Amino acid sequence: MTTPTPSEQEREPAGTRPAPTRRRPGGRTARIRAQVLDAVLAELGEHGYDALTTDAVAARAGVHRTTVYRRWGDVGGLLADVLDAAGDDDWQPPDTGSLEGDLAALNQEIQTALTAEPPVVTALIAASFRSEKAADAQQRLWEDRYARCEVVVSRAVRRGELPSGTDARRLLLAATAPLYHQLVLLRTAPDPHLPGDAARTAALAAAAGAFAETRPAPDA
Amino acid sequence: MTTPTPSEQEREPAGTRPAPTRRRPGGRTARIRAQVLDAVLAELGEHGYDALTTDAVAARAGVHRTTVYRRWGDVGGLLADVLDAAGDDDWQPPDTGSLEGDLAALNQEIQTALTAEPPVVTALIAASFRSEKAADAQQRLWEDRYARCEVVVSRAVRRGELPSGTDARRLLLAATAPLYHQLVLLRTAPDPHLPGDAARTAALAAAAGAFAETRPAPDA
Repeated sequence: MTTPTPSEQEREPAGTRPAPTRRRPGGRTARIRAQVLDAVLAELGEHGYDALTTDAVAARAGVHRTTVYRRWGDVGGLLADVLDAAGDDDWQPPDTGSLEGDLAALNQEIQTALTAEPPVVTALIAASFRSEKAADAQQRLWEDRYARCEVVVSRAVRRGELPSGTDARRLLLAATAPLYHQLVLLRTAPDPHLPGDAARTAALAAAAGAFAETRPAPDA
Repeated sequence: MTTPTPSEQEREPAGTRPAPTRRRPGGRTARIRAQVLDAVLAELGEHGYDALTTDAVAARAGVHRTTVYRRWGDVGGLLADVLDAAGDDDWQPPDTGSLEGDLAALNQEIQTALTAEPPVVTALIAASFRSEKAADAQQRLWEDRYARCEVVVSRAVRRGELPSGTDARRLLLAATAPLYHQLVLLRTAPDPHLPGDAARTAALAAAAGAFAETRPAPDA
């Protein structure tokens, strides 16, 4: 997978990369939203959260500051809308023909997103520690991405790779968690083996029955 | 495991909970350090990073602000010293007699630390997104904790539960990553099954040979 360029972002994500705002034809409101959210991503990637202000975003987007203020309120509102916009795409998880292959390809997308330059995805994750609105939106985005990924597990069940009743969410979390833990929290240098290793670990555990029992999610 | 009280903190940790500064007998310098670092933890737990200032810490610790400024420099320096002090203990991972038992007990300690009130551990993790000094110290602490945990794997090898040559670090990261991912990043409600589930998953994958191959760590 190549380094994502802005025009590729929409096809990139793995529950993490914010797609750029969609450029729907027509609508001044939609156009302004696209300009503003692109400006948020650019400011965040270049200067990080600390330098992010509604004024800087307005200036970069070429819109009036009161427009930004009235529509998004504050930096938290801007970040939340970036994250909500990122989920408004047609991303689907990879379909490689095997559980381990799908998980490895998914993990590769996550690793690419988490190590991209400028580090927009990690900056958004970091920002979610600063703003409740951003944290809620990041949570919604991840929830949506993991829900979309459940098809990886149902396909494996249909192929006979896994027993029916396998807990898709637990399997997906086990497969992807090492990427986030090592790259976001432990901040270890990217390991080219990690996406495949974590995929293989989850697939082996799944085959051994680790996720055979579906449990209701705890109340949030 | 019960909710940790301040006096229990030193026996609590799982690579995460900062032990309070040790109260070594004698030494005004050591006493001031203990007072100041305790004040940092208390301020952080009560008000979070945003309200953390060297002045507030000095006032709470009952020491002169110039003492704090001269010795720790800024908030990042204070947080880094809290994290370094947390590693200065004799914590060892649980020894339950089985790999899965050890991993489950370790994960239980991590879950307890990550869901404790006041949320000092998660506040320190959040702070590591704001301060390079804190990030470096958090990384040192985790590195030290994971290194101490490798005995869990070598004991399992000695018992014949795992093949020799099992990559201890990869196994430990796979076992613990879901806790951090779900509690720190995804912010899902604590699931009482999670520590045991993640332990079992890693143990099953290990038995299936997922970590049989030791790989050199990538250069940092």
